[in-house]
Formats: sequence, C-alpha cells, structure tokens
Amino acid sequence: MEFNLHPAFDVFVICAALLVLKMIVVGHFTGFLRIKREAILNPEDVEAFRSSKPESVEEDPEVARGLRAHRNDLESTLPFLAIGLPYLMTNPSASIASGLFIGFTLLRVLFSVFYLLGVQPWRSLSFVLGELCVLVMLGQMVLWGFSH
Amino acid sequence: MEFNLHPAFDVFVICAALLVLKMIVVGHFTGFLRIKREAILNPEDVEAFRSSKPESVEEDPEVARGLRAHRNDLESTLPFLAIGLPYLMTNPSASIASGLFIGFTLLRVLFSVFYLLGVQPWRSLSFVLGELCVLVMLGQMVLWGFSH
Amino acid sequence: MEFNLHPAFDVFVICAALLVLKMIVVGHFTGFLRIKREAILNPEDVEAFRSSKPESVEEDPEVARGLRAHRNDLESTLPFLAIGLPYLMTNPSASIASGLFIGFTLLRVLFSVFYLLGVQPWRSLSFVLGELCVLVMLGQMVLWGFSH
Repeated sequence: MEFNLHPAFDVFVICAALLVLKMIVVGHFTGFLRIKREAILNPEDVEAFRSSKPESVEEDPEVARGLRAHRNDLESTLPFLAIGLPYLMTNPSASIASGLFIGFTLLRVLFSVFYLLGVQPWRSLSFVLGELCVLVMLGQMVLWGFSH
Repeated sequence: MEFNLHPAFDVFVICAALLVLKMIVVGHFTGFLRIKREAILNPEDVEAFRSSKPESVEEDPEVARGLRAHRNDLESTLPFLAIGLPYLMTNPSASIASGLFIGFTLLRVLFSVFYLLGVQPWRSLSFVLGELCVLVMLGQMVLWGFSH
Repeated sequence: MEFNLHPAFDVFVICAALLVLKMIVVGHFTGFLRIKREAILNPEDVEAFRSSKPESVEEDPEVARGLRAHRNDLESTLPFLAIGLPYLMTNPSASIASGLFIGFTLLRVLFSVFYLLGVQPWRSLSFVLGELCVLVMLGQMVLWGFSH
C-alpha cells in the first residue's frame, strides 16, 4: 500500500492494538476466575479443571461480572475499532483524531478496571465519556459523508 | 491518505455511522429498561438505581429481550462493519455496493424495531434479508480473492 | 481506490470472508438447535416454532453451548477482522501476514467444530493458538506504531 497514511494512523494502530490486548486480558481474567471459582459450564471441562463441586447450571456471580465486563467490550470497543479506519479516511484533523483515539483507549482501560472492581459511579462515567468519543467520530463521519 | 476513494465510500461512511448509532440506541434502551424495571445485576448499582425491590439474580424478561436484540447487533452488524472496507477495496460495482450498504442499514434498523416490539415474522424476515446482503458481499470477496 | 494493495491483501479478503461465513453457520446452527430442541425464548416465536413444550425461561444446555461457541467468535474473530486491515497497512512481511491469516482462519474453524462437539483439550488448544496469531499481529503493530 503505497499511499500517504493519515498523520494520526500510527496513534490509531497503537490504540487499536492496546484495546484488543485489553480485551484479551479481560477475557482471560474471566477464564481464570471460572477455574478458580470452579464455575465451569461445559461438561467436558469439569474433569480437567474441577476438583470437587458438582457441575454448575447457573453462573458464579464473579464470573458473571467478568462476562458482563467482557461483553461491554464487544458492545463498545469493537464498534470503535470497526469505524476507526473509515473515520481516518474521511481525513479528520490529526489532533482531534489522536485525542479521541487516546481518550477512548484510556477510558476503556479505566472502565474495565472499574467494572471488575465494581466501583461506581466511575464505571458509568468512564463508559459514558468513552461513548462520547465515539459519538464525536460518528458526527464527523456523517457530516463528511453528506458533504461529498 | 491521498488516493482515490471508491465511489461508494461516502455511502459506507454514512451507513457505518448510522449503524453504530443504532447499536448505541439499542444498548441504551436496555440500560433504560434495566433502571425502569429495577432489574439491576451489579450489586454496586443497586444503591444508585433501585428503589425497593431486592437484588435480582435472574434477568427481567424485557431486559433480556433488549440484551438479545443488542447481542444480535454484535453478531450481525459488527461483521458487516468489519468487512465493509476490505469489500470496497476489492473494487465492486458502485451501484451494487451502495445498494447493499443502504439495504443492510435499513434492514437492521427495521430488525431492531421489530425485535424490541416482538413482531414476527417481520423480525426474522428483516434478519434473513440483512444476512443475504452480507452473503452477497462475502461471495464477491471470495471470487475476487481467488481471481487475484 | 487506486493504490498498491499489500501482497497479502487477497489472502486477508478470502480469510475474512470465510471467517464471517463460519460465524453465520455457527449462528444458524444455534438457531436450528433452538427450534429442534424447542428451546425458544421470545414469546412471539413460540406459536411459530413450538409444538407442545411450554415457553422456557432457562436455556436448553445444547443451545447454551451453541451460544457460547458463537459468543467466542464475537470475542475472538471480530477483533481479528477489525485489526486485519490496519495491520496490513503497517506493511508487514507478506509471508508472515499470510501465514497468520491462514493459520488463524483454520484454527477458528477447528475451534468451532471442537466446541460444538465438546472435544477437549483440542478446543482450548485451537483457541490459544488462534489467540497467539492475534498477539503476534498486535506486537508487530505496537512496534511499528512506536517506530513511526
């Protein structure tokens, strides 16, 4: 690909990589909890990971919390990743784009920590501010799209 | 990025922005229901949002419906967003690409409305037709990939 | 878009299309199980698809397994699709990129088969190796980002 990359592209690449890494960490945290709390849902996993407790039908509360934190990443981080490149291709201001990318990434890291620790209202605040970054990107995209 | 954008790129940008916006609305609708129906799963949220009902272990049926509608977006809208740009880079016909983008977007908006209202068979129909748009894109991508 | 595509772009296009197709198949497998096992959660679907069993509140175990297999695709396949193009734009070695794309795609197909059949430790092994492919891509992206 021999073309001029957007000046904020390198910031996007680093942020996207860190966000996916963070998602993987949250996912493994849930898997780790599942083994530690012996809350295993697949019968074939019971033999491998369980010591004594019977096979569970319902979720352990801490595992369920980890799953909700991870699911929130699917709902919020994945749309950001999906629109990041099309957004850059609409040629936004490099400083605004970099600011939104870095802001969103920091807010999502904070959100995950707050969610797993159950700290309110900081969890909701970091979520809403992260969503605000995405909404600004969406607004810029729609404006660009209709002016072309 | 100084290169010639695909003529359907602006349609994709608008559709992608609207689809992510729609996902956010569906997500907030669930959050709104959760507070309204007092069906709150995180213990730390109980104090902030609950009036009287004890902490729930199971999901409220309407909240569970909202979660399923939102989850369907993860399963269907996110793959569309992820392949949209690679698809455009295979240089498809602009009218076919625009038609698929606009068709998918309208069908997903309808799907969400039908899901939240519980209207069948329109919900299933809008889902299947939206999936058909994605399958056409996938077919064009595979054909392009193997002819290059 | 008139610019030089990365030599591994056609491999990515084929892999991305096959991965989304696989996700759709896993999703339909769950829907098919839901009807076959008569484990239907939306009240409006009961009339259309159910023969005799009363409306279920909890999930059927086999349907729940299908949902977990599908959810794992959201957690693992979607981040891969989202970073595929930014990764290629950092201009990685074509043979490494192709190897990672093809490896990840094969591992995810195996993972889905192993998950639906409940075959351990192969399910976990295919998951971890697939994640390793993503981690290599993330590492290359971060290194590239900080050297630009």
